[in-house]
Amino acid sequence: MLSKVSRIRGSIRPVGYPHTEGILGDCMLIHGAELGVESSFGSALVDTGQALKQMAEVRDCMDVRVKRSFIDPLQMLQEKELKEIAFHLKKLEGRRLDFDYKKSSKRRIAEAELKQALDKFEESRELAKRSMFNLLENDVDQVQQLLGLIEASIDYHQQSRDILENLRSSLQNKITDTSNRPKREYKSKSNASTMCCTDTYGFSTSSSYDTEVTQELSEKRQL
Amino acid sequence: MLSKVSRIRGSIRPVGYPHTEGILGDCMLIHGAELGVESSFGSALVDTGQALKQMAEVRDCMDVRVKRSFIDPLQMLQEKELKEIAFHLKKLEGRRLDFDYKKSSKRRIAEAELKQALDKFEESRELAKRSMFNLLENDVDQVQQLLGLIEASIDYHQQSRDILENLRSSLQNKITDTSNRPKREYKSKSNASTMCCTDTYGFSTSSSYDTEVTQELSEKRQL
Repeated sequence: MLSKVSRIRGSIRPVGYPHTEGILGDCMLIHGAELGVESSFGSALVDTGQALKQMAEVRDCMDVRVKRSFIDPLQMLQEKELKEIAFHLKKLEGRRLDFDYKKSSKRRIAEAELKQALDKFEESRELAKRSMFNLLENDVDQVQQLLGLIEASIDYHQQSRDILENLRSSLQNKITDTSNRPKREYKSKSNASTMCCTDTYGFSTSSSYDTEVTQELSEKRQL
Repeated sequence: MLSKVSRIRGSIRPVGYPHTEGILGDCMLIHGAELGVESSFGSALVDTGQALKQMAEVRDCMDVRVKRSFIDPLQMLQEKELKEIAFHLKKLEGRRLDFDYKKSSKRRIAEAELKQALDKFEESRELAKRSMFNLLENDVDQVQQLLGLIEASIDYHQQSRDILENLRSSLQNKITDTSNRPKREYKSKSNASTMCCTDTYGFSTSSSYDTEVTQELSEKRQL
């Protein structure tokens, strides 16, 4: 009830369709942040996550545009023109049956009555034919709507490509930077490396531990 | 069993993932063919259907490429490096507990034994730290794999865009042709329009019917 009210008020902004790009983007943002920006993979994940989120927005725009320019008109066609044609065809069939019955019936039927039935049938057929003819004559409108769909998806692919091109160059820069950076050698018991492990994995192999250990040991010796 | 054999023989070609483009493409091809190529909407649907089928193939190529260049290496990382690190951390924890127990235990423990426990713990911690350090030092490989993913999807979007651009120009030509073509007026009882209706909707309002009707009528008159 409350959610309904707030939806009417527009205070809850409608949640878009969960696009694959968006889901993967969220996942990369979360785990990229966990790895931390000091790790080049971590920052690469964050960049990629942001790009994917942008792509999800672009896709949402396409969805809205396709609905407006392609799906809605198609629905209109079905609910209006096609329904009208179906109605005319149904009526036509009824009048045909009526005429067939009258002309083939054993009992003598007044010619006037037969003529009237034929006229009604003719009239209905004219209407049905005209409605179908008009639909087929104006089918360029449907092609126009199809073009709307195509143009929406062209823009979607173009924009996605642009976003990814930017991401590619930033990732390539990251790779060259990391490759040019002097290779760190693993220093046994080096705090740096320990800290770095701790930061990234949150695992407590902090080197404060061994100082404490040696302390304890010396105490034991003093006993 | 048979399907398994033929799969081994490779005589059944593996069915790709049913991409949206492919499904929509099939649908448009079927109904475009139903409408017939003489209807400009029908031929537009067929063209669009073919383009969408091409896009589905492009997407399949991307899927294969992403699996090879991104997902497989990621799986390798999880099954090899990360598993190794987890093993070292587990061992380290065990040795730490052993050392803690020995140094805090009430009963007098030979200093040599305590020293040995400490050494084992130190050794394990070195191994764990080294394995994590190596993983973090070589994280540029993971960035490289991420770049593989990005490049695959750039190519996908680029190729889809190209396919759609071609489709757009062909649809625009169709629209201009149809608009330039002289508007046909609806001729009452014209065979042309009736035929056209019949072809398109397969509905039997063929004008052969009224000739038959008038015949019948004249016969009745003769009675």
